[in-house]
Amino acid sequence: MKIGARNQIIGTVKDIKKGAIMCQVKLEIPASQMSSVMTTDSLVEMGLKEGDKVQVVVKAIHVLLIKD
Amino acid sequence: MKIGARNQIIGTVKDIKKGAIMCQVKLEIPASQMSSVMTTDSLVEMGLKEGDKVQVVVKAIHVLLIKD
Amino acid sequence: MKIGARNQIIGTVKDIKKGAIMCQVKLEIPASQMSSVMTTDSLVEMGLKEGDKVQVVVKAIHVLLIKD
Amino acid sequence: MKIGARNQIIGTVKDIKKGAIMCQVKLEIPASQMSSVMTTDSLVEMGLKEGDKVQVVVKAIHVLLIKD
Amino acid sequence: MKIGARNQIIGTVKDIKKGAIMCQVKLEIPASQMSSVMTTDSLVEMGLKEGDKVQVVVKAIHVLLIKD
Amino acid sequence: MKIGARNQIIGTVKDIKKGAIMCQVKLEIPASQMSSVMTTDSLVEMGLKEGDKVQVVVKAIHVLLIKD
Repeated sequence: MKIGARNQIIGTVKDIKKGAIMCQVKLEIPASQMSSVMTTDSLVEMGLKEGDKVQVVVKAIHVLLIKD
Repeated sequence: MKIGARNQIIGTVKDIKKGAIMCQVKLEIPASQMSSVMTTDSLVEMGLKEGDKVQVVVKAIHVLLIKD
Repeated sequence: MKIGARNQIIGTVKDIKKGAIMCQVKLEIPASQMSSVMTTDSLVEMGLKEGDKVQVVVKAIHVLLIKD
Repeated sequence: MKIGARNQIIGTVKDIKKGAIMCQVKLEIPASQMSSVMTTDSLVEMGLKEGDKVQVVVKAIHVLLIKD
Repeated sequence: MKIGARNQIIGTVKDIKKGAIMCQVKLEIPASQMSSVMTTDSLVEMGLKEGDKVQVVVKAIHVLLIKD
Repeated sequence: MKIGARNQIIGTVKDIKKGAIMCQVKLEIPASQMSSVMTTDSLVEMGLKEGDKVQVVVKAIHVLLIKD
């Protein structure tokens, strides 16, 4: 499988906070942490649960850089 | 400074590919790599160059998860 | 601090509507108004409250133009 | 016409920088400035030119807040 | 009306799931289905209801391609 | 493979316009057309070419609705 995005990191699901419409998934990636927000429908369809290995995908255009 | 985004990772600029309108910045983050695309205007105004330390910021809503 | 985004406007927080996962922040900018949606986690970590001065940041790629 | 986005500001096109794939449009909004990046195809189909009045539309989820 | 986005498909609202902050709208497009998430404020202001014809607009930069 | 996005349509690559930094891919989906913009690096790594079948993925949050 080839994904058209520059940022693809393997992560592990650490925590899921589920709301009626949206949910938030906390991820552990090597040496850091990330979070994803998606619809609860997508979460349920994926059958995502704590401990799952996932690909964390971000298009480069969505990455903002800040320099002190 | 407080940033309203779930994903904030410290990175180092490794490479810059500059086009007329857009440019692409390759970043080293702990144990992985990321890329950012921004306007060349923003790049120039930031004075971004190889070796710079930056904050790599991504709103959680832009993070897509894929599970095999 | 230098931010790699074309759109950076100073605004004032006018109203915060907080949900379990997501929240909505209404902002006053010079001569107009804007809104931001973020995770409630980010809101809490920022300690954002009415009257706060903030930078309202939007990457140019997220701006859609419509002409009548 | 009703647009499903929280941020809708009337602006005037000030400058267009056209590349082969992407282009950048500078806009004047009341008391501030903004920029939009879109495909050059979209620009040409819109027939966008300096002086045009446009609606500048941003979904609230794409707005990032930063507090000093 | 001219919209500065590559993807503009006519759709019909099939279902609306409304939360306090965000809501999810299911759409029928020719030969397929789509979903949109927006603020409930935007939904209410649009007066969106089942059966409404809408334009489904996505900037090309938000479209991710995956190849097996 | 499970993808955490509401919008997943099978499409066929119709045309690729390649720039130095970014490229634009035109897609045929059932009864309509779409376009994607990505980095040329991603395009090359995917080995994407005309005629390829791809999954066209869009998070629901990026979908804007407009009603006349």
